[in-house]
Amino acid sequence: MKRIEQHASFGGRQEVWQHASRSTGTPMKFGLYLPPAALRGEQRPVLYWLSGLTCTEQNFITKAGAQAFAAAHGLILVAPDTSPRGEGVADDAAYDLGQGAGFYVNASEPPWAAHYRMQDYVADELPALVEQHFPASGARGICGHSMGGHGALVTALRHPGRYRSVSAFAPIVAPSQVPWGRKALGAYLGADASHWREWDAVHLLGRARERLPLLVDQGEDDEFLDQLRPELLQQACSAAGHALELRMHAGYDHSYYFIASFIGEHIAHHARALAA
Amino acid sequence: MKRIEQHASFGGRQEVWQHASRSTGTPMKFGLYLPPAALRGEQRPVLYWLSGLTCTEQNFITKAGAQAFAAAHGLILVAPDTSPRGEGVADDAAYDLGQGAGFYVNASEPPWAAHYRMQDYVADELPALVEQHFPASGARGICGHSMGGHGALVTALRHPGRYRSVSAFAPIVAPSQVPWGRKALGAYLGADASHWREWDAVHLLGRARERLPLLVDQGEDDEFLDQLRPELLQQACSAAGHALELRMHAGYDHSYYFIASFIGEHIAHHARALAA
Repeated sequence: MKRIEQHASFGGRQEVWQHASRSTGTPMKFGLYLPPAALRGEQRPVLYWLSGLTCTEQNFITKAGAQAFAAAHGLILVAPDTSPRGEGVADDAAYDLGQGAGFYVNASEPPWAAHYRMQDYVADELPALVEQHFPASGARGICGHSMGGHGALVTALRHPGRYRSVSAFAPIVAPSQVPWGRKALGAYLGADASHWREWDAVHLLGRARERLPLLVDQGEDDEFLDQLRPELLQQACSAAGHALELRMHAGYDHSYYFIASFIGEHIAHHARALAA
Repeated sequence: MKRIEQHASFGGRQEVWQHASRSTGTPMKFGLYLPPAALRGEQRPVLYWLSGLTCTEQNFITKAGAQAFAAAHGLILVAPDTSPRGEGVADDAAYDLGQGAGFYVNASEPPWAAHYRMQDYVADELPALVEQHFPASGARGICGHSMGGHGALVTALRHPGRYRSVSAFAPIVAPSQVPWGRKALGAYLGADASHWREWDAVHLLGRARERLPLLVDQGEDDEFLDQLRPELLQQACSAAGHALELRMHAGYDHSYYFIASFIGEHIAHHARALAA
């Protein structure tokens, strides 16, 4: 494992690490923010951030402005890349499939199955790695944007007990019902739509075994509302008796300007649960 | 003049505008942040931000995290591109000359003189445009990073009475004495170094006619300290009897992680002077 970037940031340190992943069989990069408390050697909770389509490990760490709040609350932030990458890795010319578009699933279909094991990576390998090498307390939260909002919801729902808090910005809540999700899940998991439900937050909520504090922010001027469908999440939570704080924001779009405007409140949401 | 981007941000609006500049004879872009108070129609002060080498109007608006503080203090932020651009505009293969490297001077030498009139653009044309089209009160501050820190210092020193406050992150304080500056000023202004002094903050401070609140932050691990030379600014201010708050920060480098860590204090510095 190799540190390839480090920058002082709000009294802590923003780093980027690269390592050989056994899940994907490729080199993977992730951003790591260590708050001042972690630099002093304290064991701190970790908030995982999953990014959206086309992103790398860079977008969140350069644009969200999260470090100020992580420093204040003493949270470690971990932000992985969104797919395996490289010459030997299957890809597609479209922005919404292949490299940069892993959808946080474990692919079963060729040519994707060889490397696209992003669920194993983000849910198992990466937390184990982080907790082995950095001053992580073992308390985990998970958060994400768009495709990464889907990833955060699904990863938490598939692993009861693993996270204490979950939140999302403009998540794809029902991938089996929208074009982005149907295209990606069809490619990665095959044409049998019954296999998609295990990767669909709205479906998984119906049998959720735990009740995590769940905060979702959605811009009302989001250009991708037809892919996101926050009303389906609201209906599913209501039917399942799962609490949901869904906040609709007039005027906000799908960009990092939206994320930056509310990331402080998401980090406070996670810090409350992670300190408990 | 055409608005080419707009995003809700911290209750205000981040925009990008493009217009035909008479200073440069090219289309120019600038970022404009309107805080909530300006959206309500109040006339607000404007803080101009000048970016560093290789930057466009995008870097500051996506990476600095300034909007949160501008919203809180009710400041409009204006962040122009760093040079004229386009096919008919002179350029150089190096990153530190030509497009993306205007150095905020008015060039006198071919082939640069035709379009490289960035001082006229940032000091005259852009403020006039902003004050004509947006709810700007007429109170101005100026701030910048690296080449743009040089730009902020020199622009304020060359125009007594035009700005109420000035600050910089890791500025090039004495371009006539360092490689970046000698290369650029030699190209834009010609080989006669006596012409360079009018664009050198350390020289201009010796005859400054006003005393602006001056805040400078510098990272001690900045990889370009030999181009920046903060000690020369300190000596010049001391010799001129000009107050200077120069803050050296252990561990910080030249990146936007450094800027983001302290931009809130710079905006507070400007807000104090601009509200007075």
